[in-house]
Amino acid sequence: MQRRKTRAVQCGAVTIGGGAPVSVQSMTKTHTEDTRATLQQIRELADLGCEIIRCAVPTRAAAGALEQVVKGSPLPVVADCHFDYRLALASLEAGAHGVRVNPGNMSEEAGLREVFRTAALEGRKVRIGVNSGSVRPRSGMNVQAAEDDLAELMLRSALECCAAAESEGCTSLVLSLKASDVPTTIRAYRSAAEACDYPLHLGVTAAGPPQLSLVKSAVGIGTLLAEGIGDTIRVSMTGPPHDEVEAAFSILRALGMRPQAGPEIISCPTCGRCGVDLVELVQEVSRRLKGCKKDLKVAIMGCIVNGPGEAAEADVGIAGGKDFGYLLRRGKKARKVDGSQLADALLDEIDSMD
Amino acid sequence: MQRRKTRAVQCGAVTIGGGAPVSVQSMTKTHTEDTRATLQQIRELADLGCEIIRCAVPTRAAAGALEQVVKGSPLPVVADCHFDYRLALASLEAGAHGVRVNPGNMSEEAGLREVFRTAALEGRKVRIGVNSGSVRPRSGMNVQAAEDDLAELMLRSALECCAAAESEGCTSLVLSLKASDVPTTIRAYRSAAEACDYPLHLGVTAAGPPQLSLVKSAVGIGTLLAEGIGDTIRVSMTGPPHDEVEAAFSILRALGMRPQAGPEIISCPTCGRCGVDLVELVQEVSRRLKGCKKDLKVAIMGCIVNGPGEAAEADVGIAGGKDFGYLLRRGKKARKVDGSQLADALLDEIDSMD
Repeated sequence: MQRRKTRAVQCGAVTIGGGAPVSVQSMTKTHTEDTRATLQQIRELADLGCEIIRCAVPTRAAAGALEQVVKGSPLPVVADCHFDYRLALASLEAGAHGVRVNPGNMSEEAGLREVFRTAALEGRKVRIGVNSGSVRPRSGMNVQAAEDDLAELMLRSALECCAAAESEGCTSLVLSLKASDVPTTIRAYRSAAEACDYPLHLGVTAAGPPQLSLVKSAVGIGTLLAEGIGDTIRVSMTGPPHDEVEAAFSILRALGMRPQAGPEIISCPTCGRCGVDLVELVQEVSRRLKGCKKDLKVAIMGCIVNGPGEAAEADVGIAGGKDFGYLLRRGKKARKVDGSQLADALLDEIDSMD
Repeated sequence: MQRRKTRAVQCGAVTIGGGAPVSVQSMTKTHTEDTRATLQQIRELADLGCEIIRCAVPTRAAAGALEQVVKGSPLPVVADCHFDYRLALASLEAGAHGVRVNPGNMSEEAGLREVFRTAALEGRKVRIGVNSGSVRPRSGMNVQAAEDDLAELMLRSALECCAAAESEGCTSLVLSLKASDVPTTIRAYRSAAEACDYPLHLGVTAAGPPQLSLVKSAVGIGTLLAEGIGDTIRVSMTGPPHDEVEAAFSILRALGMRPQAGPEIISCPTCGRCGVDLVELVQEVSRRLKGCKKDLKVAIMGCIVNGPGEAAEADVGIAGGKDFGYLLRRGKKARKVDGSQLADALLDEIDSMD
């Protein structure tokens, strides 16, 4: 897949755009002033592979606390600032690797320009993050026109802000254009991809509870990534940020954009042909493979229809029969195994592989 | 979004392609011969909105049982047949509304042609369902080339089979080209969308355990749908078919392609600005809205940054403050509510709405 060409923007040690791997970010859900809890959460997210962290800076106290957070954080820290440009200035002073501003609610233009000048001087990046909640479609439009218009309005607001930033010498810019509905989000980012060379931070905003957010984010972020659009992603979920990071990596992995950490299980949905308890088998194998770091594709198939074929695409696999199964290794039948021994046989085989 | 133009194919009372809404299908996981369990599962899936059901027909006994299944089923029934063309003939004789054949494993060409002639005579549809497991890339290719080639090989295999079907007068054809990895799946369907006017049945095969499958399916199916490709979908999951149907609808809803049955919750991910227990609030509201059929967008936002704006996009909402919240109705602040009363106030407001 051809990725969209963008300028490269540095966020601490992480490069966004310019051909760098799509990075995963999240946001702390602690109060930023509680630096101990905040740093603890950042370390946990870093352990899960998170690469950039954002912290809310709603007050001067939070901006003040940021200095300690930046010092202790293993990840580059971006300050999320709204309404008051002085919070962004204070965050840059505290050493934040970047700031996120929303032109929809930071209305003091001279102040915003000061933020851009300071960021340019200090070599920090700025994300211009427009949300659908901060721009309003023209009144009297029908739903479809309003949605089209919303995407257009979001983009226009972002690009006007970029022009102001560039005129202040601030060129390390990343854009985001998040709507809470997926079609508007996709439309806004597709237009942005045409209109500029800024790296894009992808996300669906206010995506909702975990299960719903997972689908909305996978469809929205996934579609854009599959079209070559997007340089850094954040899954937004009403739940622990750890789940956001795991969801983000699962989207990237689904598209083959980040290496799998550990084995990938492919398993059939089962049907009337299935002669073994496949759901149970998949659960057991998944459980027993937790922590395994081998980069293997493991196929667990209920029958011979797709079993040998799909197991052949995998490094190792099982194709079930009636109360038995074939153990397959790189597409060849290794041996016939009793139905009760399938998990053990598969795990032994995996153990023996490099 | 512009949907790809296809011919219309009839599956019982359900139209696939030709501008019809994207339909949701699943597959029974019972033994088809157990007609009681099979019909019970079909009825449960129909209640969830499933529109087409497929049953495995691995034996003559299963084909025989199909007659009773077809008679009792509220949904059109498609017989899933592999290896032996006589199973497809017997399924058509049993009254199946369609058959699915896989040219990769039904090698007896004369027999397959007889299936096409019979389907044409009886006015039934045939899905030509190629899986990556049934075709093999040429040896000696590197991984990327093999994946490209696999998508091409799948399409070529499907189109050759279509040509044979057409030459027997069988034109009610639906194609599927499922791989167990998302990029190959996307590539194969994109090529098919260019190459023919057959309706496309989308899915990622052997997608794995529920959480993994949800992401792979949302990314794979979602990307194609967002490009206007796809006429009927099946999410394949190693788990109950009910979860497959719910996942399929959540993908369609994320793209605005099927109406929401009941309220949709949008909620923010929370961050250091949040002054109420939003996760708990979202869970409580979700739980209490179960079964509500009102077509409303409900915003539950932790703070005022995106709160009023995004709550304004919604019909009703909460924007949290410090231990209190604003109740919002169609974008206007209705009243200030104590932090402990947020769920009650929101649900009262929803109750009062048409």
